[in-house]
Amino acid sequence: MKLSELASTLGLAYQGPDKEIRGVATLEEAGPEDISFLANPKYAGMLQSTRAGAVILAERFGEQTTTALVSENPYLDFARAVQLFAKPQGSFNGHSQQAWIHPEAEVADDAVVYPFVSVGAGARVGSGTTLFSGVYVGEDCQLGPNCVIYPNVTLMAGTQLGQGVILHAGVVLGSDGFGFAEAAAGREKFPQVGRVVVGDNVEIGANTCVDRAALGETRIGSGSKIDNLVQLGHNVQVGENCILVSQVGIAGSTKLGRNVIIAGQVGVAGHLEIGEGCRVGAKSGVGRSLPPGTDVSGIPAMDHATFLKSSAVQGRLPEMARTVRRLEKEVEALKAALASQGETNV
Amino acid sequence: MKLSELASTLGLAYQGPDKEIRGVATLEEAGPEDISFLANPKYAGMLQSTRAGAVILAERFGEQTTTALVSENPYLDFARAVQLFAKPQGSFNGHSQQAWIHPEAEVADDAVVYPFVSVGAGARVGSGTTLFSGVYVGEDCQLGPNCVIYPNVTLMAGTQLGQGVILHAGVVLGSDGFGFAEAAAGREKFPQVGRVVVGDNVEIGANTCVDRAALGETRIGSGSKIDNLVQLGHNVQVGENCILVSQVGIAGSTKLGRNVIIAGQVGVAGHLEIGEGCRVGAKSGVGRSLPPGTDVSGIPAMDHATFLKSSAVQGRLPEMARTVRRLEKEVEALKAALASQGETNV
Amino acid sequence: MKLSELASTLGLAYQGPDKEIRGVATLEEAGPEDISFLANPKYAGMLQSTRAGAVILAERFGEQTTTALVSENPYLDFARAVQLFAKPQGSFNGHSQQAWIHPEAEVADDAVVYPFVSVGAGARVGSGTTLFSGVYVGEDCQLGPNCVIYPNVTLMAGTQLGQGVILHAGVVLGSDGFGFAEAAAGREKFPQVGRVVVGDNVEIGANTCVDRAALGETRIGSGSKIDNLVQLGHNVQVGENCILVSQVGIAGSTKLGRNVIIAGQVGVAGHLEIGEGCRVGAKSGVGRSLPPGTDVSGIPAMDHATFLKSSAVQGRLPEMARTVRRLEKEVEALKAALASQGETNV
Repeated sequence: MKLSELASTLGLAYQGPDKEIRGVATLEEAGPEDISFLANPKYAGMLQSTRAGAVILAERFGEQTTTALVSENPYLDFARAVQLFAKPQGSFNGHSQQAWIHPEAEVADDAVVYPFVSVGAGARVGSGTTLFSGVYVGEDCQLGPNCVIYPNVTLMAGTQLGQGVILHAGVVLGSDGFGFAEAAAGREKFPQVGRVVVGDNVEIGANTCVDRAALGETRIGSGSKIDNLVQLGHNVQVGENCILVSQVGIAGSTKLGRNVIIAGQVGVAGHLEIGEGCRVGAKSGVGRSLPPGTDVSGIPAMDHATFLKSSAVQGRLPEMARTVRRLEKEVEALKAALASQGETNV
Repeated sequence: MKLSELASTLGLAYQGPDKEIRGVATLEEAGPEDISFLANPKYAGMLQSTRAGAVILAERFGEQTTTALVSENPYLDFARAVQLFAKPQGSFNGHSQQAWIHPEAEVADDAVVYPFVSVGAGARVGSGTTLFSGVYVGEDCQLGPNCVIYPNVTLMAGTQLGQGVILHAGVVLGSDGFGFAEAAAGREKFPQVGRVVVGDNVEIGANTCVDRAALGETRIGSGSKIDNLVQLGHNVQVGENCILVSQVGIAGSTKLGRNVIIAGQVGVAGHLEIGEGCRVGAKSGVGRSLPPGTDVSGIPAMDHATFLKSSAVQGRLPEMARTVRRLEKEVEALKAALASQGETNV
Repeated sequence: MKLSELASTLGLAYQGPDKEIRGVATLEEAGPEDISFLANPKYAGMLQSTRAGAVILAERFGEQTTTALVSENPYLDFARAVQLFAKPQGSFNGHSQQAWIHPEAEVADDAVVYPFVSVGAGARVGSGTTLFSGVYVGEDCQLGPNCVIYPNVTLMAGTQLGQGVILHAGVVLGSDGFGFAEAAAGREKFPQVGRVVVGDNVEIGANTCVDRAALGETRIGSGSKIDNLVQLGHNVQVGENCILVSQVGIAGSTKLGRNVIIAGQVGVAGHLEIGEGCRVGAKSGVGRSLPPGTDVSGIPAMDHATFLKSSAVQGRLPEMARTVRRLEKEVEALKAALASQGETNV
């Protein structure tokens, strides 16, 4: 693709000679036919050494290179450039004869069904959706158009996906929630008869698990992005445009508002409400509901600024403990000395 | 089903007019043909507003609604009602021609074998057991009757399941334990030649991993319930009726007694003994053995009551550090003043 | 196998009568035809009670048993003995007609391809490599010789494996990294167009996920061993001979040097450098780069010795808080008393 054509497609001005661009790369690794980008000013020095054929950058850096596309958001425009060069994965088309599609399922003619896919009774798979090998679509699932379901994903019965949903390999949606009733003779399973409902343009990372509701629905709002190995319990509600980083666990019935960001390895207890726009720092343990816009971190989660100060103290605790013991002795000594002096004075 | 019939099946008395019940739902979402339940008294107010056709509740709440089943354990009886209305998942019967069953395997005639199931040499699959798509049963595995093995579960060679075991999608039992021997030229694999043995009525959540023993057996006792994304190392022994919540990790050779409850994201070090009835709070790190009946929390795990008090201090640590520094100065000043006064007195 | 033959194969001297050895077991469980081992001196007492036919042990324990192989590294030599008796898993040979191999893929004649394996266009599978059921090999993947890829593993397009790589069930390599660009209308996906490159003799545990690079490569160095349910973000670089224990998460672009050991459930933030030989204690949170040879633990990670002392204080924090409050009062009282005495003295 010509650089001029790329600029036009991205709606950006360009400077320097026109040239053929064949790929995308970092400033460090780009060659003369690659386009690269400068988003973080601390890497501006690399503009001198890069071999990139062209760079997407902010206007103020334009003087430091010859061939550039000028952007107000270089990272976003580079992401769009990458999209233009990216080739979707897959090397199969049509509906494989080695798949198993229940006669009462409806799969769009232009959906791609790899070998070893199972589609149960009553399931519907939308136009342009791809089911890679080993995908299981349980009965009565509904998959919207243009979804990409990577290999070995399991969608248990009744799972519903909007349009443009991406599920990475090994994702499980609609597994039973973890619910048991105590009986005299031991625990009995509370049958999990709800389902999982996923909005539009949601992306869910590899081997992440989302349990079906006990009753009703576990929901993931449109635009939310969930990383690998995340656990969402039954009846969890994730609002729109949330970000859940890998290995997060959210216990049952907790509700996240819109635009919540939860960093890696955080645990959130059940039956809480995490308000719109809350942010939770990595490895935190959240045991209470949070009003909208709260930033917390730590175990237990506290105000983020307090957490930073508290963290700074952790390594000094042994010294502090020694100081407190010393102060105790000194105060005792002072009390004794003062008493003795008082007697002397009498 | 008639309400009277439901009452009779559950062994409960009912009040109010008989009627047709067609489903189950929460008080909030139930319609006039649903049965619901009241277990937590704090929701008693909803008895006024619910549209439920009937409610399972404790006798003392009976006056607050017209149509009710009276129960001493409403949650348990509702779970049993849900069971009556629940339809098991699946839309396949028989042994699929698209499965691969080794000629030396034995699969019960009334077992269900979905397409794309693999059953290795010497494996035995019991009566009434269902193997969903993508399940791999390694050689010499033994699966008891009435097990449900959901899609894409992997049972490595020699794994043994009792009766009524439920394995959710993506579970891996019998993967190699993490064992290496240090040699001059680098690490060598310690071949993991043990197996995994699972008792009766065990349920294991999606994408949970249980490693085979290095030698001998990794064991999960009957009635234990394990949530999603849990990791059990080689030679771990889980007693009967334990509860392990999601993302827990138990390192190799640790033994849990009966009725141990371990909350989400806890880590337990290897070669420990966690006594019968111990409870471990969420996100804890357990680095020492625990006598029976101990409740611990925290990193490192401590007595749970102490943990709660310690947690309450965490957010005040910065202030405490400042106070200690101030006290140090004040004590120095007091010492100086006292010394000076002593001199004055002399 | 005769004990004499075993001794010869392992290059060890033996004492006692020659005999037939048919298996391997722990001292506790071994029978008269098993060989066992003594590596940890604290179990030396079991030499009296064991029924083992022979024991691999250090020379100094030779007098305590009749039949022994004398070793300078009993654990390593026992591992090698186990290897001699271990039977590789699997009960299939050849290339299954129930697999799907793209006509443009190249699979070595002596590779084993189970039923329900998918191999995409341009993929190459090396000699002696086994692909178990449900394995997906994306287009242009390159798998070296003698790899073992257990069931339901997913290798997305372009993944490259060296020789002798072992991937346990449910592993996902090459899933998209978690990268999004903020746009006015919401987040846009940053297409992940890099790949995953794995060196020789790497072993990766069940359900572990390794994301492909955004651009370039996510790399795992030769000899590294990774446990179950680990998460490696895009562009992570793991050096040679590292050990990552289960449920560890390493965020994007972080680099680990050689011989790094990271214990279970640790989280490491993105864009860090963890130097050669660093060791990180279980459940730690690492938020800064570490120079080579550093041992850290804790949240936030601190020097390991400091962590141990800090941990010891955690349970005493409530008492310490009370002490500090008491000291504050006592210091106030002392100040008042001193002032009063000063006045008295005046």
